[in-house]
Amino acid sequence: MVQGKFDIIHGWAAMKPGLKVEPWSYKPRPVGPHDVEIEIMHCGICRSDLHTIKAEWENVNYPVIAGHEIVGRVVTKGENVTRFSEGDIVGVGGQVYGCRHEECNECSRDLDPYCSKAVYALNTKYADGERSQGGYASAIRVDANYAFKIPDAIANGHLEYAPPLMCAGVGAFASMIRKGVKKGDKVGIVGIGGLGHLAIQFAHALRTEVYAFSHSPNKKQQCLDLGASHFINTSDEEDLKSVHRKLDYLFVTSTVDPSDYSKYMSWMDYNGTIVLLAAPAGNISFALRGFLFSGVSVTGSVIGGIEIIERMLDFAAEHNIRPIIERFPMEKINDALELVNSGKVRYRAVLDNPVTEN
Amino acid sequence: MVQGKFDIIHGWAAMKPGLKVEPWSYKPRPVGPHDVEIEIMHCGICRSDLHTIKAEWENVNYPVIAGHEIVGRVVTKGENVTRFSEGDIVGVGGQVYGCRHEECNECSRDLDPYCSKAVYALNTKYADGERSQGGYASAIRVDANYAFKIPDAIANGHLEYAPPLMCAGVGAFASMIRKGVKKGDKVGIVGIGGLGHLAIQFAHALRTEVYAFSHSPNKKQQCLDLGASHFINTSDEEDLKSVHRKLDYLFVTSTVDPSDYSKYMSWMDYNGTIVLLAAPAGNISFALRGFLFSGVSVTGSVIGGIEIIERMLDFAAEHNIRPIIERFPMEKINDALELVNSGKVRYRAVLDNPVTEN
Repeated sequence: MVQGKFDIIHGWAAMKPGLKVEPWSYKPRPVGPHDVEIEIMHCGICRSDLHTIKAEWENVNYPVIAGHEIVGRVVTKGENVTRFSEGDIVGVGGQVYGCRHEECNECSRDLDPYCSKAVYALNTKYADGERSQGGYASAIRVDANYAFKIPDAIANGHLEYAPPLMCAGVGAFASMIRKGVKKGDKVGIVGIGGLGHLAIQFAHALRTEVYAFSHSPNKKQQCLDLGASHFINTSDEEDLKSVHRKLDYLFVTSTVDPSDYSKYMSWMDYNGTIVLLAAPAGNISFALRGFLFSGVSVTGSVIGGIEIIERMLDFAAEHNIRPIIERFPMEKINDALELVNSGKVRYRAVLDNPVTEN
Repeated sequence: MVQGKFDIIHGWAAMKPGLKVEPWSYKPRPVGPHDVEIEIMHCGICRSDLHTIKAEWENVNYPVIAGHEIVGRVVTKGENVTRFSEGDIVGVGGQVYGCRHEECNECSRDLDPYCSKAVYALNTKYADGERSQGGYASAIRVDANYAFKIPDAIANGHLEYAPPLMCAGVGAFASMIRKGVKKGDKVGIVGIGGLGHLAIQFAHALRTEVYAFSHSPNKKQQCLDLGASHFINTSDEEDLKSVHRKLDYLFVTSTVDPSDYSKYMSWMDYNGTIVLLAAPAGNISFALRGFLFSGVSVTGSVIGGIEIIERMLDFAAEHNIRPIIERFPMEKINDALELVNSGKVRYRAVLDNPVTEN
């Protein structure tokens, strides 16, 4: 067993349900033969981190260090790890372990996020009982399969843009690939935030006709700059009429009033597809006959497995897809969480550790 | 304008909301240059007829003659009709007119059931204000594009099997084709009735592995005979466990308790598709996160357009797909409606007019 660099990992943990995090340290699990230890340079703040620390979803084991849009430098590698060298710049997203067994019903089909043995970046148990802790911290140890080399085109000089790709980016891209988005499709994006502003860019790079939906007209120019062909002000009846039965796809990236979903259906062309990417608690309700007489599908999508993360990084590098970010020093994390919570960040908050890039 | 054979069409109409129909006659619309007049030999009873006459769905203009699984003989054709000769045996389903214009957003894409000018077999207005009346009658006049020659393999000797293909058959087949069912898929059918027992046959002929779901174990042998590989008793917990995360598709052909839908989701493989074919009034409710963490799609499908009806008839002829029916003389229609309403018919009621087949 190799010795890691970090005997103790210093992080910012929620100690109880709520927005507030505070300094907290833990002794990390050993660096196993297939693991890498990563010194964290930047970590994005995803809204699902807030759902977790506020205990809005599931049971949470406190203290919990959130953060799953992680970018850093490999500082230690397990004895069987050949893919990386020390010093490599890598990203880690929502998943840090999957069994990858040939006979696994999920991993064998590149559905590793659904693997029954999957460990997510935070608030999950490893088989040995150890709990995963996330990226609002000095370091993290993960299975090397779930660390991804950041392409040079992204890493060189502007590494701070990489973290949001690891969850928001892969969430947007994976959903479009899985659900069959193709050139020429009319694609709507509802909710122009961390996920939505990347979804516009991925949809545009996939050569679709992009409709950005927002109730904030002051986001219009930015949406057009990112690649949207149309900006639909959801408070404007005329704008809404113009999209009646127009869309092949609608990606819903924000948590909305459940009653909005019937409205969404009216925007869809026959046999179009509504894809839910945001995960509020609660139910969604549709008029049954709406499905029959439109052929519209409603579905959802979460993060992607290894194969799709690798494709996403290559695609983002090739098409120059970058998030728009606001940066915060790690010690200002509580300010950043407040701003994310109130929807004031355009469009993704990224925390910086005091680590040099060389 | 050619003169039709039927100056008056004698039918069985609902005069007010309810199950009961009574003799009622009407003066038919003229036989237009593109129309055919059909002497009705047989008409199936679809549950949606019952929804209509009981006014469970939308506004109904009484008197209304229901019936939209129609088979009969062409007795008159408009001067521009070249596809048919008098005496041809044809079927008519839920739609009797679509504009078929090149510039029609729907018809130009073979989505003619959604054409804004579509006229359905009953309870719809033509552009000239005339109301459509259905097949529980001596005759019907329809646009010749919506009359379909019944393949000889089906028509010869057993024409009474043809009517259920015109709505239940096309509903099942169209949904499978539209949603991409392919060889080797695991396909569940919920509700073994008029639609379901045909769906089993179509799915089997498409070389899928068919799971028939019913709470009536006494339907098991018939389901296996029709082509199901598995019969799942929905009252049996062990049976239900055996289908956890198993299905690529689930076709829901019966009206069920809305709370059942979350159960259905647990039967679906990741990224599987639930297709609703039955159209009760009311809403359907799902846990939002269920969509995200399974990738399952929920969608619906109705009748097909011209192209798919023609494919369905050829496919049914080739694969020897035939409904199991119970026959009633037309004058016993009230008994038949009662039996359909109480779910006692296995599996489709067909009404016979006193017309010879030659």
